[in-house]
Amino acid sequence: MNERLFGFVGGDSGAWLVTSMDAVKGHPLPNATHVAMLNGASIQGHQANWVLRGVTSNERYVTKTEKKNLVAVQQGLGRTPSTMAALIPIRKSAAWWLLTQEERREILEERSHHIQIGMAFLPAIARRLHHCRDIGTPEPFDFLTWFEFAPSDEARFNDLIAQLRATHEWSYVDHEVDIRVILKNS
Amino acid sequence: MNERLFGFVGGDSGAWLVTSMDAVKGHPLPNATHVAMLNGASIQGHQANWVLRGVTSNERYVTKTEKKNLVAVQQGLGRTPSTMAALIPIRKSAAWWLLTQEERREILEERSHHIQIGMAFLPAIARRLHHCRDIGTPEPFDFLTWFEFAPSDEARFNDLIAQLRATHEWSYVDHEVDIRVILKNS
Repeated sequence: MNERLFGFVGGDSGAWLVTSMDAVKGHPLPNATHVAMLNGASIQGHQANWVLRGVTSNERYVTKTEKKNLVAVQQGLGRTPSTMAALIPIRKSAAWWLLTQEERREILEERSHHIQIGMAFLPAIARRLHHCRDIGTPEPFDFLTWFEFAPSDEARFNDLIAQLRATHEWSYVDHEVDIRVILKNS
Repeated sequence: MNERLFGFVGGDSGAWLVTSMDAVKGHPLPNATHVAMLNGASIQGHQANWVLRGVTSNERYVTKTEKKNLVAVQQGLGRTPSTMAALIPIRKSAAWWLLTQEERREILEERSHHIQIGMAFLPAIARRLHHCRDIGTPEPFDFLTWFEFAPSDEARFNDLIAQLRATHEWSYVDHEVDIRVILKNS
C-alpha cells in the first residue's frame, strides 16, 4: 500500500475515545465511541461505523518563507502531553475546485490568512493534513485534518477553529464534521 | 468508484494496438500488444501485463488567463481523425515534491514554458492528464498523460515531446516510458 495513506476508523475500538461528534455543516457521520488511526495496508477490510481515508502529500499553498517559518516552530504528533485530539473532515464545493491555483491561494492566504492563523497556534497545536479528493475510492470529504494538543490548550484550539470558520475560505466548505477525542487511559 | 479514476491496461486486448514502448528514463514496462482505457469500477481486478491508474483532477499550475486561452482552443478526446495516441507515464523525483507550489510553478512555466509549449500544439494534440501520486494504491508513476492526434500530426507530436524533454522541468523526471498506439481497425 501507499505508505502515505491513513485511515481513520470510527467504531467500538481504537486508541482514542470519542467525546463529541458535531456536524458543523451538512449531514452528520454515524455515531462511534472510538477512533482508530491506521496506516497503509491495515486499512483494507476494516469493519466499522465509518472509515475515512486520505494521503499526506506535498505542500500546495505555502511559500518558501512560510514553509521555513512553519518548519522552524511546528512539532510532530505523538507528544506525551497531547492527550486530546480532533479529527475534522471537510469537503469544499465544486466552485472551489474550478478555481485556478492562484485564485485558491489568494482566497486561502491573502484574503483568509489560513496559514498565518495556524502559525499563531504553533507549537501548541500539532496537525497532520490528509488529502482525500484524488484517491481512487469515492471519499465523502476532500480533506481530513488531525490535530493533537494538551488539555490545557483546548480553549486555544477552539479559538483556532473559530477563526478559520469565520474566513471567506470557509464559505467554500459545504460539509464539515468536528470529532473530538481523548487518548484512552490518559 | 471515483468517476475521475481511469486505468490504462497493457495486455492482449483493448481498443488500441501498441506500435512501440520505449523507456525514455528508468526501467521499461513489460511488453504488451494492446492498451485498454477503462474508467471507474471496471478497473478492479483486471488481469494484464500492467495496469496504470490515475485520476483527473483540478488545475495545479495554470493561471486564469492561461486557462481561458487553453479552454478556448483545446479539443476533447475521441475525435474521429485521432487514430493515433500516446500514453506517457512519468515520475518526478523526491526533490521536485519537496519544492513549494511557487517554486514548481516557476520551474514549470516561467523557466520551462510547459504550458506555452503545449498551447502551440492545440488543437491538433488533444490531451488528458491523470494524477497517480495521491491515490491509495502504490503507483509506479506520478502522472499519466494520454495524447490523441491524427496520423498527419505525428511529427508535430514528436516535436512537442522533444521540446518538453529538453526543458529544465524534465531534469526532475526520473522515470518515463513512451507508449505509442493506434486505434484498432483504423
